[in-house]
Amino acid sequence: MTSIELLPLRDLQSCCAPITRDVVSEENAASLARALKALADPARLRIVSMIAAHEDGEACVCDLTDPLGLSQPTVSHHLKVLTAAGFLTRSKRGTWAYYRIAPGSLDAVSSFISAV
Amino acid sequence: MTSIELLPLRDLQSCCAPITRDVVSEENAASLARALKALADPARLRIVSMIAAHEDGEACVCDLTDPLGLSQPTVSHHLKVLTAAGFLTRSKRGTWAYYRIAPGSLDAVSSFISAV
Repeated sequence: MTSIELLPLRDLQSCCAPITRDVVSEENAASLARALKALADPARLRIVSMIAAHEDGEACVCDLTDPLGLSQPTVSHHLKVLTAAGFLTRSKRGTWAYYRIAPGSLDAVSSFISAV
Repeated sequence: MTSIELLPLRDLQSCCAPITRDVVSEENAASLARALKALADPARLRIVSMIAAHEDGEACVCDLTDPLGLSQPTVSHHLKVLTAAGFLTRSKRGTWAYYRIAPGSLDAVSSFISAV
């Protein structure tokens, strides 16, 4: 009986290059995808940008409707999506609710990009 | 006739804080939203991460199917979406097409985050 040299599986798959760095986990990828989906809308990107650009980093719906050219219910809907996704914090004072960028809320996106 | 002092519109809108920084333009927001939509999928985020982690920053479909636990047609579809969105470049060599992260393709996302 002739002895047969068995190659490691890796060597048999000649097309496959080895992975040399950490890869984002399934769990982190799912959570990051959810966050990016909330952000992946032109109006929502502009809302985040406008809030960050406001004096004191705070804005209410009334600050955003005119520059966005959108109705108050539409802006409120986008603010709700961004708040639910963790990008904004909301605090009610008198008649208005004021929104801020949630500290560290863009860190996961930022870390992903830095690692690529 | 009593003279009436007219206040600038800004002062009449007591809820509105002034904008102190640049805001992402409608055009840039639309283009960034399209890019983020392409990226906002768990499998696609893992594909980008896996390609970046591969030796020489290059991978083919055959490198990705097993670690992702997805079929070759599914992985090919995701690679097509990421390539169309400008995140990957594709070069055919022999039987296989090899994918790399397109240089600078994450810069717009990165700039947006830095500005917030």
